[in-house]
Amino acid sequence: MSTYKLTLSYDGTDYCGFQLQPNGRTIQGCLEDALTKVYKTDIKIKGCSRTDAGVHARMYVCSYIAPDCVPADKLPLAVRAYLPEDICVSKCELVPDEFHARYDNCGKTYCYTINTAMFQDVFTRRFEWHYPKKLDVEKMQKAADCFLGAHDFSGFMSAGSNIIGTVRTVTRLDVVRDGERVKIYIRADGYLYNMVRIIAGTLAMVGNGKINPDDMADIIASCDRTRAGITAPPEGLTLYEVHYD
Amino acid sequence: MSTYKLTLSYDGTDYCGFQLQPNGRTIQGCLEDALTKVYKTDIKIKGCSRTDAGVHARMYVCSYIAPDCVPADKLPLAVRAYLPEDICVSKCELVPDEFHARYDNCGKTYCYTINTAMFQDVFTRRFEWHYPKKLDVEKMQKAADCFLGAHDFSGFMSAGSNIIGTVRTVTRLDVVRDGERVKIYIRADGYLYNMVRIIAGTLAMVGNGKINPDDMADIIASCDRTRAGITAPPEGLTLYEVHYD
Repeated sequence: MSTYKLTLSYDGTDYCGFQLQPNGRTIQGCLEDALTKVYKTDIKIKGCSRTDAGVHARMYVCSYIAPDCVPADKLPLAVRAYLPEDICVSKCELVPDEFHARYDNCGKTYCYTINTAMFQDVFTRRFEWHYPKKLDVEKMQKAADCFLGAHDFSGFMSAGSNIIGTVRTVTRLDVVRDGERVKIYIRADGYLYNMVRIIAGTLAMVGNGKINPDDMADIIASCDRTRAGITAPPEGLTLYEVHYD
Repeated sequence: MSTYKLTLSYDGTDYCGFQLQPNGRTIQGCLEDALTKVYKTDIKIKGCSRTDAGVHARMYVCSYIAPDCVPADKLPLAVRAYLPEDICVSKCELVPDEFHARYDNCGKTYCYTINTAMFQDVFTRRFEWHYPKKLDVEKMQKAADCFLGAHDFSGFMSAGSNIIGTVRTVTRLDVVRDGERVKIYIRADGYLYNMVRIIAGTLAMVGNGKINPDDMADIIASCDRTRAGITAPPEGLTLYEVHYD
């Protein structure tokens, strides 16, 4: 038996999130089923994070313990046959038994995409928030800069999470215009429930003139969810990269 | 009553093609239903071409006759509410009554996308053919050049079409590398059944070394379907532009 690290990507549109659920199709469920078929024994995986229903991953990392009957480099093609088309395993590596995808990473980067065009793009609609408003990217970046560093982000957390500490450290928050799209890249050491989607919704309201970027530091310090912006919808959110040393 | 010209785009993945069918969901069916709801009277549309099941359109043009109760510039938003998310009407214009989307255009451009990466891209998989082979784009372009001009393309037509003339004029056939993707752009005055998909499949086999580009002129002249390549799958094909004077 060995411990394997998997790198995968998925279109989360048709899933109830990553984590196994009693009712509802999940990425974890599909992946464990596929691996169980490959190894002909029950496989349980440990993921690097829970992503919400409808959220995507360009790079997701998880690990599992399995018999050594399949060489790591052959696993991606072997599991391909048992996976739906919206999940793709691109890499499998042998790792030390103590490896843990969630606790061993030194941060995760998410990308949130907003399409501001008047009409939705039928080709990319599954992966972006259609928000047909003029957005001032400079104001958004000014507000974004206030998030950098360690802050108590309890004003940027949805109810329903039972987390004890609410301080997280944001090391990158870039707002980038790409034609009619605005992309928000955020890297932090960890995230509260819906934190990226609330930050994206808040920055969109800054861009749209509904929140003044000069108030952002105050809004963060207030820890008051009602002063932050809306929770942007899940389709715009993609886990972009998981960082390991 | 006036004649209106509509410009739309669609993700054809979940449709049995453009044209109305007795059984099966079609773009035309969804669009006529939506327009009928907007105008509160039966609307019939005339399209610029039949696209096959699973084929997409970046730009599709059709026309219909309707009462003048909705200003043309308001129609795209009015019809939005009744359309599924994979069909998007971006423009509506008043045109002379004699306008015909199919007979009045002076050519159509299609784009066929091949993804040659080892693993499928979960974000673009609906719009490209996953063909994980090394493709020699220079050889493909050399073969592509043989298609330019007027030719009898009956060797590049699937059975089941009841067309009389089989001569078509190709005015553009470009093979373009875009990272791990190869895109084939073709413009012609008209197309035989599956013509673009057979040309794409044939060029892929040239790129992969299975067909010699020096044989291409002969293969075209032979009018022998068995000498051309495979019919590439529908997901890679997109109607890219319809040209009007």
